[in-house]
Amino acid sequence: MFTKYLTEPTLILDQQKCIANINFMVDKAKANHLIFRPHFKTHQSRTIGKWFAQAGVEKITVSSVRMAQYFANDNWKDITIAFPVNIREIQTLNELAEEVQLNVTVENTESVEFLCKKLKFPVGYFIKIDTGYHRTGIEAKNIPLIDNILFQAAACDNLFFKGFLVHSGDTYHAKDKNEIEHIFNHSAEQLKSLKDRYIKDYPQIIISTGDTPSCSLLNDFKTIDEIRPGNFVFYDLMQYMLGTCEFNQIAVVVGCPVVAIHDERKEIVVHGGGVHFSKDALVINNQQVYGQVVTFSSKGWEKPNEKIFVTKLSQEHGTIQATDKLLKSVKIGDMIGVIPIHSCLTANLMKSYYTTNDDTLDHLSGVTI
Amino acid sequence: MFTKYLTEPTLILDQQKCIANINFMVDKAKANHLIFRPHFKTHQSRTIGKWFAQAGVEKITVSSVRMAQYFANDNWKDITIAFPVNIREIQTLNELAEEVQLNVTVENTESVEFLCKKLKFPVGYFIKIDTGYHRTGIEAKNIPLIDNILFQAAACDNLFFKGFLVHSGDTYHAKDKNEIEHIFNHSAEQLKSLKDRYIKDYPQIIISTGDTPSCSLLNDFKTIDEIRPGNFVFYDLMQYMLGTCEFNQIAVVVGCPVVAIHDERKEIVVHGGGVHFSKDALVINNQQVYGQVVTFSSKGWEKPNEKIFVTKLSQEHGTIQATDKLLKSVKIGDMIGVIPIHSCLTANLMKSYYTTNDDTLDHLSGVTI
Repeated sequence: MFTKYLTEPTLILDQQKCIANINFMVDKAKANHLIFRPHFKTHQSRTIGKWFAQAGVEKITVSSVRMAQYFANDNWKDITIAFPVNIREIQTLNELAEEVQLNVTVENTESVEFLCKKLKFPVGYFIKIDTGYHRTGIEAKNIPLIDNILFQAAACDNLFFKGFLVHSGDTYHAKDKNEIEHIFNHSAEQLKSLKDRYIKDYPQIIISTGDTPSCSLLNDFKTIDEIRPGNFVFYDLMQYMLGTCEFNQIAVVVGCPVVAIHDERKEIVVHGGGVHFSKDALVINNQQVYGQVVTFSSKGWEKPNEKIFVTKLSQEHGTIQATDKLLKSVKIGDMIGVIPIHSCLTANLMKSYYTTNDDTLDHLSGVTI
Repeated sequence: MFTKYLTEPTLILDQQKCIANINFMVDKAKANHLIFRPHFKTHQSRTIGKWFAQAGVEKITVSSVRMAQYFANDNWKDITIAFPVNIREIQTLNELAEEVQLNVTVENTESVEFLCKKLKFPVGYFIKIDTGYHRTGIEAKNIPLIDNILFQAAACDNLFFKGFLVHSGDTYHAKDKNEIEHIFNHSAEQLKSLKDRYIKDYPQIIISTGDTPSCSLLNDFKTIDEIRPGNFVFYDLMQYMLGTCEFNQIAVVVGCPVVAIHDERKEIVVHGGGVHFSKDALVINNQQVYGQVVTFSSKGWEKPNEKIFVTKLSQEHGTIQATDKLLKSVKIGDMIGVIPIHSCLTANLMKSYYTTNDDTLDHLSGVTI
């Protein structure tokens, strides 16, 4: 049993499920003639990165300069930082640009002006477009600002226009597949109209999108050129509840030692709290939940018959609202599995992975670079 | 300006405020003849630990075995792990018990039986009591279970009864000082009645409590012997909104680079998201908020005149709902300060501190032990 020697809360990875998730998306991108530039912010692991490389992936997306460094130092040569460029990090950007094909994301003239002055090596840039999520980016109809950026950048020696990039994070809050499809199509239309407008001047430009819900569910990617999903590598309870994955596609679970059992109120307390899961929650059956309980088998874990959730979370404690059956079968010192709500944040907190094959894998947050 | 060379989201610590917070609680404990055993789970820093030592502190509380190790290796000799003992960690517990005065927390006979068999060195134990918070612990009225534990432990060579321990975390949700006082008094009465019952057989037993709200606000600690507050070392927005600290006692702020400005909807996007702050939120004026904006001065930051909050948070992005005044004064690449909701979780994510005196301090989550 792979949990036998685990003593602390441990992020457990099912390598087989993870690789199946990678292959599923690689195949889908191929079938749709899409450039596949997976987002590595979910796993942040060089080892898992190598599984992507083995599946033929050569281009990646990251969400911070530090993450770009981590993967550049592991021989990734084509990296897009899909986060509005932080001009304070110009020195590291230049170091990266000397070594790899670096793409940054811009959405204002101030950043372009700064990059224009300070870049010492060629860098590709995407213009970040907001097609409805309203987190950040330039609204697709704001042609004057887009023109301004293109005009300004055209005069720079080291800035090269790559295309338009969007993140339709609103799919995470969609009520069903139809709504996800609607959000995707609405976004794709806006990107197409931008591409149509600028392709004469920039024949190589691409349009890039790709949240996990859309990429998991859809089979018609319209005129999109590139997808950048990330979360699908593990999926999680949020994606499962959204209907974008099967339960058995979820590739990570947190193993939590049982430290207290309260029969009278049917609660089990585990070591596993906000410093392990993050505080992301879902409302299921009118109850705030922080994770779903699974039982370990010798090779991993299965979809449970009973729906049992972690319903309270403090810094180190997790409280499971148990059933009689679970209460009867669990004892102090057991290891209980909890599927996280948001695997990206959980992996970031857990800092490493322990596989069901007893290997330990790296995570950027657990290393010094 | 201490922010000048910061490039990434950075947890900034005002050492002077932090030391003033430490001295405030040291003095209060002295004035009330209390044993002061501060909880180190908030700062998790050896350097900050030394500031406690300089103020005369010799006993500490931690919330995990790993944290106990970290401070034991830095010469702390009297450590209580205020978390239900995780029997899977017996090997490390034995290593610790050989080196330091280690106290564990028990609340069931299974753990006591296990410790009894496996401990190789003397360990003190507290019985964890639940006086109303209902996270974990034995209800104070459950005398049969307490008797059982005492009876079982009395036969063990390496288990020594220290007393009763409680965490009244419900004070964090109190509506005012009166309610905090009421919760504290109600808890203290239950602990006193337990002490009265067992003191004949255990003349050295103590009763230990001490959440930050109670310890910050109260001046009458009844018959409590020991307090264990932790959060007061930094405080945070949650404590400020609860009325347990002044704004200028908050000793940490996250410095976040400005990456996008959306004048049309009065939003500023910073690099600073769930991987920096955690997702803990407060509802202020009917709005979910993830932090409050402050402006940096050359020596630190001041209480702002305008109340401006981070109102959206994703993995790396924070969105500030700005005022016209702030929008006018901020530009791309500036560093904006954001007071975190929950300093314990934020410090755990940020992994180190940068002081307003330009020093870098350790945090357990940023080191390998």
